[in-house]
Amino acid sequence: MLNIGIIGAGRIGKVHAESITYHVKEAGVLAIADPFMNAETEKWAKDLGIKKVSKDYRSILQDPEIQAVLICSSTNTHADIAIEAIKAGKHVFCEKPISQDLAKIKEVMEALKGTGLKFQVGFNRRFDHNFEAVREAVKTGKIGDVHVVKITSRDPDAPSLDYVKVSGGIFLDMTIHDFDMTRYLSGSDVEEVYVNGACLVNPAIAECGDIDTAIITMKLANGALAVIDNSRKAAYGYDQRAEVFGSKGQVAVTNDAPSTAVISTENGVTGEKPLYFFLERYMASFSKEVSLFAQAVINNTPVPVDINDGLQPVLIAKAAAKSMKEGRPVKLSEIEF
Amino acid sequence: MLNIGIIGAGRIGKVHAESITYHVKEAGVLAIADPFMNAETEKWAKDLGIKKVSKDYRSILQDPEIQAVLICSSTNTHADIAIEAIKAGKHVFCEKPISQDLAKIKEVMEALKGTGLKFQVGFNRRFDHNFEAVREAVKTGKIGDVHVVKITSRDPDAPSLDYVKVSGGIFLDMTIHDFDMTRYLSGSDVEEVYVNGACLVNPAIAECGDIDTAIITMKLANGALAVIDNSRKAAYGYDQRAEVFGSKGQVAVTNDAPSTAVISTENGVTGEKPLYFFLERYMASFSKEVSLFAQAVINNTPVPVDINDGLQPVLIAKAAAKSMKEGRPVKLSEIEF
Amino acid sequence: MLNIGIIGAGRIGKVHAESITYHVKEAGVLAIADPFMNAETEKWAKDLGIKKVSKDYRSILQDPEIQAVLICSSTNTHADIAIEAIKAGKHVFCEKPISQDLAKIKEVMEALKGTGLKFQVGFNRRFDHNFEAVREAVKTGKIGDVHVVKITSRDPDAPSLDYVKVSGGIFLDMTIHDFDMTRYLSGSDVEEVYVNGACLVNPAIAECGDIDTAIITMKLANGALAVIDNSRKAAYGYDQRAEVFGSKGQVAVTNDAPSTAVISTENGVTGEKPLYFFLERYMASFSKEVSLFAQAVINNTPVPVDINDGLQPVLIAKAAAKSMKEGRPVKLSEIEF
Amino acid sequence: MLNIGIIGAGRIGKVHAESITYHVKEAGVLAIADPFMNAETEKWAKDLGIKKVSKDYRSILQDPEIQAVLICSSTNTHADIAIEAIKAGKHVFCEKPISQDLAKIKEVMEALKGTGLKFQVGFNRRFDHNFEAVREAVKTGKIGDVHVVKITSRDPDAPSLDYVKVSGGIFLDMTIHDFDMTRYLSGSDVEEVYVNGACLVNPAIAECGDIDTAIITMKLANGALAVIDNSRKAAYGYDQRAEVFGSKGQVAVTNDAPSTAVISTENGVTGEKPLYFFLERYMASFSKEVSLFAQAVINNTPVPVDINDGLQPVLIAKAAAKSMKEGRPVKLSEIEF
Repeated sequence: MLNIGIIGAGRIGKVHAESITYHVKEAGVLAIADPFMNAETEKWAKDLGIKKVSKDYRSILQDPEIQAVLICSSTNTHADIAIEAIKAGKHVFCEKPISQDLAKIKEVMEALKGTGLKFQVGFNRRFDHNFEAVREAVKTGKIGDVHVVKITSRDPDAPSLDYVKVSGGIFLDMTIHDFDMTRYLSGSDVEEVYVNGACLVNPAIAECGDIDTAIITMKLANGALAVIDNSRKAAYGYDQRAEVFGSKGQVAVTNDAPSTAVISTENGVTGEKPLYFFLERYMASFSKEVSLFAQAVINNTPVPVDINDGLQPVLIAKAAAKSMKEGRPVKLSEIEF
Repeated sequence: MLNIGIIGAGRIGKVHAESITYHVKEAGVLAIADPFMNAETEKWAKDLGIKKVSKDYRSILQDPEIQAVLICSSTNTHADIAIEAIKAGKHVFCEKPISQDLAKIKEVMEALKGTGLKFQVGFNRRFDHNFEAVREAVKTGKIGDVHVVKITSRDPDAPSLDYVKVSGGIFLDMTIHDFDMTRYLSGSDVEEVYVNGACLVNPAIAECGDIDTAIITMKLANGALAVIDNSRKAAYGYDQRAEVFGSKGQVAVTNDAPSTAVISTENGVTGEKPLYFFLERYMASFSKEVSLFAQAVINNTPVPVDINDGLQPVLIAKAAAKSMKEGRPVKLSEIEF
Repeated sequence: MLNIGIIGAGRIGKVHAESITYHVKEAGVLAIADPFMNAETEKWAKDLGIKKVSKDYRSILQDPEIQAVLICSSTNTHADIAIEAIKAGKHVFCEKPISQDLAKIKEVMEALKGTGLKFQVGFNRRFDHNFEAVREAVKTGKIGDVHVVKITSRDPDAPSLDYVKVSGGIFLDMTIHDFDMTRYLSGSDVEEVYVNGACLVNPAIAECGDIDTAIITMKLANGALAVIDNSRKAAYGYDQRAEVFGSKGQVAVTNDAPSTAVISTENGVTGEKPLYFFLERYMASFSKEVSLFAQAVINNTPVPVDINDGLQPVLIAKAAAKSMKEGRPVKLSEIEF
Repeated sequence: MLNIGIIGAGRIGKVHAESITYHVKEAGVLAIADPFMNAETEKWAKDLGIKKVSKDYRSILQDPEIQAVLICSSTNTHADIAIEAIKAGKHVFCEKPISQDLAKIKEVMEALKGTGLKFQVGFNRRFDHNFEAVREAVKTGKIGDVHVVKITSRDPDAPSLDYVKVSGGIFLDMTIHDFDMTRYLSGSDVEEVYVNGACLVNPAIAECGDIDTAIITMKLANGALAVIDNSRKAAYGYDQRAEVFGSKGQVAVTNDAPSTAVISTENGVTGEKPLYFFLERYMASFSKEVSLFAQAVINNTPVPVDINDGLQPVLIAKAAAKSMKEGRPVKLSEIEF
């Protein structure tokens, strides 16, 4: 059993702490640290059976009982903490994105080199039942050679403008998951990106220099094409669908809903809206990704989402931002790394 | 090409006249007769290209150019006209039911005996694309041996009380189609019927001595079980579904709708209601049944719905009425014929 | 927080122990007892954090730290242990059925009288997301007055003949859940039952005096009708559907599947089979029912499934068995209690 | 009633002749002309009741009994015949595209100017039940302001290479319908196009200078975005879907199938493939478009698809071809007209 220390006790840190405690047999949370640790959070941690609670993540890095850390701190601290953790000899599970800054990712990659430590990135959607089923169909050849990947990803509501300002832009904040999905579902790298974007949900987002609606097309290394459509606000809730079309057919997944209930009246035949947002929709994927991380550490096998899988979506996001700015398709090779 | 005379120019007579003219290549309507023939209907007939229009169906029976008649008159006249038509040497397509009176059906059967004439009964639902697909799956063994047949059949609104009074009761008027479906989908005769019925839609229907809601279970000759649920009024429209469950699986059909459109808003995910009633839902089956009748006459092959197929649902309906009255399962062998 | 002792460490006892530990905030498992307790189960219990492990359930009944017991022992011991537990002053959560013997249920009811103790019966399906959505639609009047309740309940495979022999028959073993569903979804008691049953899956089940395929129709106290169709073996897996039809429309739920993936090829458009069996399908309902039980104890409010809710399905099952035997509809009032 | 002459008795000419005869009450086919008219086609025409059959379309243009012509000849003759017909004072229904040559379309527009004659273009999909339902939802504000239009359009099989060579390229031959759909569903013109295309179905198509797989994104005049994905070959048949997403929600339509039958076995839950190709899928739209054309002529009201609606998709197709060639987004204003 792997002893884990969690760095960061915000929303996602708490989600991981609870999901590991209740659902991950291969790991336990020994410690949690957060600079804003307060009495309430401390009580929550104790109730969960976490023995060590601290304000300083270094206490986790120095703890010889801890073999691995989960980095759930704010995005701009991910890379530096990851490097410190690697130097302290800890295996690392790092929330996405590793960094908004490619130079920082490079530093992490260099720190990691030769250490033999495991480094996994938190692209949890790869462990969602629906997307796993799509990948499985593609991998087992059920749809033949991949021709087109299509992803629809819409949030239930736009984030606050304060959040938008520090988010790094829609591509690094939201589409990054879809870029990862594109690679995961197709089994191929991305070579070129073109963005057709607009600000249609809230004009104030444009004033922050961002967009809220986008259609992003890509050319993949295996010759296939891909398209993502994003919106920051779908009135009916979190819309998370994907299709992969190939020489022998298509596999498609649609949304999960709270129930299968359909009510037929004189007004129509009405089913439930999709599950509201990512915590409802993807909860099971959080325990699965950590469980596989723990197994990789314990058995010394490759992690399912490695540091290159963490890097590539950032590169694609950078290319997408450049495409949006310059109004032309941008090759990933144009992005300096 | 078969020259047809239509007897009865009410709703169903007109449906047949138009559907034959436009969609049945093997037959044409040469004449139509109705005791209430008026100028408007006569104009409609002429516009359709029907050459001979009359108030007296005997003009059709005596017409040597006519090989076959469609009996679309009121139910209580079906049998007598059928017998006259047979005696006049005409092939007969008779709307359902042949008669509400079993003795009359017997007379028709006896008149038919040895004549070599074709006699088909208008159980059009057998020629509906959905039910044909169910039958095909059963017949080709896709679901193995039949264990359970389930039919849901609900009208969009209850008929007028005047109609209820002369309808012969829900079993002869409405369920008769479902009794035929039970036989068609299972490929088996019915041996025993039990009715669990009530008057829940409109209490005035109970005052007419009828019910408006029923669950009817049956034992079939091949050992399988069947169940029909009926209602005279579904708020969302005409509900016409069927399932057949067997040793290897299940085949199910659901309703047809005007379009596949689904609207997702904050209020839910809403599709269209089923097609409103039988003319919308089953239109294509009317031309198909007559086309097959014409082919049977022309090629001297068996009709797809013969006089026994017309008789059996009446027998089941009689047993159902007896079951409802006596509150017990009734065998078809108890019905005198 | 409620301290619970679990009596019986078989499959369902273990399911409850794990689901309470991981998912029920209001309760914890302090002790578990089973006459066949072995080293493996003891280790499992300790790993789960259960402090007291025993072969004798009386150690639980005598434990002053324990406020409530979960009776998960074999069916024939439920009632006697329940009575002992009541006498020991423990609140009781009893797996279904309370007993196959109505006299025993009566004894439990009498033991309970005046004690103020909570007694809940384990009809877990009431806490399934799909069936809750149906109940909610009915209760809030979305479909108007209830006219017809329809339940399809098919197992993925027939049980062993050894199990069939001690099961108490299909109605007490399998349909009992559907009888409870009928009451829950309709909000009404059952007054009369008629069974149309057969042995179509495995003839050896008939030799055990049981059937494996049934259509059961019921008249409800509120005037509505109900129908259940059961099979011991659906080739495609666990089939758990329900519909309630009323004056304003219908609410229907269908099966849950492992994913929403649909693969379209030249062979057709294929989705996943339903979740295989009850542990996959109904897992979340087990923690919810115990959570609500714990809340009822803690807040001294009524339990959601009381002892009468435990009695009624047994009465219906007895009436169903009598109907099957005598080939006629049987009123619940005919069953001596 | 409008007397129509059909010019061209190939596949689409015959479809129109039959659909007008059987389904269009406001019009009749008086004459048909085709340079390759043979005995078989002549017999077919006579059987259908078409009185005048000819090899020379000018006989139709000169016929004073004929008020309108349907131009169903080969694409490269559309414009010249249209101009002749206009000069002969005939109303024109012209199959799509008017021409692959923009200068020719300009000539038609100039010939038409001031004549008061009706000119409709055969974008039949606007009259399909599914797409009409999408348009209706958009038009009535059910989904709010339009943000994103998504169209999936895949053929069941790639055309012959001989056809590919004269087709004018995928955009003028196949996507042209989807360009029209984009305008119809959004209610907006297109301003800019970017094509992400490849040859993945059949490398021989690339040798003809064409592609067979494409993702096409567009900026619309109303600020919305649009995306079309095309493939020349979907293994499961004709895939014709659309979604429009807006500020209040989404409307989506999926494929029509031969029946609603779903077969559940141990191999999965399998429904039918989409209707195979455009004649099966869009048959009803052919009579509806001509019926509306006839009404527009008879009542002197605007046609539902006017000459500008015929022009715009050709402009978009030209921009798309330029985008594919130059690897950049192309504005419609760059296309000389």
